[in-house]
Amino acid sequence: MRVSLKDVAERAGVSIKTVSNVVNNYQHVTPAMRARVQLAIDELGYRPNLTARNLRKGRTGIIALAVPELGNPYFAELAGAVIDAAAEHDVTVLLDHTRGDREQEVLVSQGFRARVIDGLILSPLELEAEDLRGRDDDVPLVLLGEREYDLPYDHIAIDNVSAARTAVRHLLGRGRTRIAYLGERTDSANQPAHLRLAGWRAELTEAGLPAPESQVGATGGWDRGDGAEAMARMLDSGVRPDAVFAYNDLVAIGAMRVLHERGLRVPWDVAVVGFDDIAEGRFGAVTLTTISPDKQAIARLAVQSLLNRLEHPEEHSGRELAAAYRLIERESTLGRR
Amino acid sequence: MRVSLKDVAERAGVSIKTVSNVVNNYQHVTPAMRARVQLAIDELGYRPNLTARNLRKGRTGIIALAVPELGNPYFAELAGAVIDAAAEHDVTVLLDHTRGDREQEVLVSQGFRARVIDGLILSPLELEAEDLRGRDDDVPLVLLGEREYDLPYDHIAIDNVSAARTAVRHLLGRGRTRIAYLGERTDSANQPAHLRLAGWRAELTEAGLPAPESQVGATGGWDRGDGAEAMARMLDSGVRPDAVFAYNDLVAIGAMRVLHERGLRVPWDVAVVGFDDIAEGRFGAVTLTTISPDKQAIARLAVQSLLNRLEHPEEHSGRELAAAYRLIERESTLGRR
Repeated sequence: MRVSLKDVAERAGVSIKTVSNVVNNYQHVTPAMRARVQLAIDELGYRPNLTARNLRKGRTGIIALAVPELGNPYFAELAGAVIDAAAEHDVTVLLDHTRGDREQEVLVSQGFRARVIDGLILSPLELEAEDLRGRDDDVPLVLLGEREYDLPYDHIAIDNVSAARTAVRHLLGRGRTRIAYLGERTDSANQPAHLRLAGWRAELTEAGLPAPESQVGATGGWDRGDGAEAMARMLDSGVRPDAVFAYNDLVAIGAMRVLHERGLRVPWDVAVVGFDDIAEGRFGAVTLTTISPDKQAIARLAVQSLLNRLEHPEEHSGRELAAAYRLIERESTLGRR
Repeated sequence: MRVSLKDVAERAGVSIKTVSNVVNNYQHVTPAMRARVQLAIDELGYRPNLTARNLRKGRTGIIALAVPELGNPYFAELAGAVIDAAAEHDVTVLLDHTRGDREQEVLVSQGFRARVIDGLILSPLELEAEDLRGRDDDVPLVLLGEREYDLPYDHIAIDNVSAARTAVRHLLGRGRTRIAYLGERTDSANQPAHLRLAGWRAELTEAGLPAPESQVGATGGWDRGDGAEAMARMLDSGVRPDAVFAYNDLVAIGAMRVLHERGLRVPWDVAVVGFDDIAEGRFGAVTLTTISPDKQAIARLAVQSLLNRLEHPEEHSGRELAAAYRLIERESTLGRR
């Protein structure tokens, strides 16, 4: 049978109210009383009923995580990490996908599910700062990802420019000089992916190499098919890169399929670097060199930041919180060993 | 400004109560009155406030979908399909993953989130019938997947035995006679994957071929790494199949990586068929022949079945609802054309 507050109160010889005060961490309990109640809690193995506790605080114990696409393994893996990080705080995650659609992102950010969630972690693509300015702040919000806004919400991301430069530098180190970028989004005025593109350009420029537009492949999305199309288009246009830095692993995998179809060997003819370190890149005929963002750190920072905001709504937010990343070198740049 | 019930009532010249009766589809409204109110609704573009409506019915407008692993693209793709199917009914989906862990599946099935969800779609792996027998039926439940239970809950699945036989028949048709099966789970007494294994055995037997245990590769899970390990172990044991039928695409992809490392060409030396038709199988150096379950149909049937149970709790459930599947032939059995 479940141990109740009453059982603890009886064992400790105090009132239920006192036990409740200890469990809820109220200040007006003497240290001696706290120790006495804690002893009874430990002896009986009492676990606070979180649902009831949440109810008292007007909370549901649920936070939402809204990502552009669950079909993208990066977001599925990140979601898994957020679920794990939230579970450590006895918080459940409601997963939502926005399809990277501005209207849907606005809807989610305005908290149309405010009745059932305590807070929201949002990874936006198309959302504009103005969409968030008029926001009712009842539901704490934390932002993830490459988009940057100067707004009073904590933002968790890796340094995308520096990560992109690391990827390009690795290709330069392998003796490549005609390094293409795949994944410029021209379907959107926002250029949500502009940081990685900027990193590519900066690194080439610093190396004294040209960064011509002909070596930039536009995509309508960031899925495998988009990468394949962009790679085929670039090759068909007569541009022949000796390396490809792709916006993400899916685009890189699509590009590698086309290189394979055209008889171009990876990495000997064309070296390829992706971004995200999804599990898929560790398999395949040629494993994929990639930038690996620390998804566990992103998840942990996001959950902590959100819970902190929930507990201390008066505290300053709007911080930039950086997670680490690292380059993982595999066959698509090193060859088979 | 949002059109309210009151606006509709004024336009139709009826009471708010009458409009509410029409909106909520109550029976005691005459057809004439219903038509009159509907006209006002259409003219004003009134949309019922679902949240308020749900509140009146004691509902949240949220259903949960619990799958073993979000990191498995099959479940991520299925989740996307369920989210889409639910959205058509203005229902939000809370996603949960159980890690295929019995305790977690019991917890989810017992409705520990009953306060916030109207119903549950569960894809179990380890759950036993006895775990569901004592279940409080307040929260409607629909089951998905290969596990079968003789219980009063609707169950949606494809015919796994017949699908597995189709895969093996395809390999036989390509002239293969030493067809291995990868993905037997020996870590669990339940053998949640026994249907596909049974289909493999039945089809070989019918073809007059042996189905020896040495051609069955056990795995600790169904991820790419599990497939790679099982393939390596089988080859190391001296068994040399000319084809592999894998429990799912991830296991097949892991196996193909090992075949590639060992210099065995797919499909010339070893043909490979997977199961699930995940997007990943359409790319890679060798695209993957696979059984493609109709995920949209599974999602649609699951949501409809759940909502039906919610509206008509008195109706009989415990139906077996079959979704379609088809074989998709690609390079891993046909070669490059």
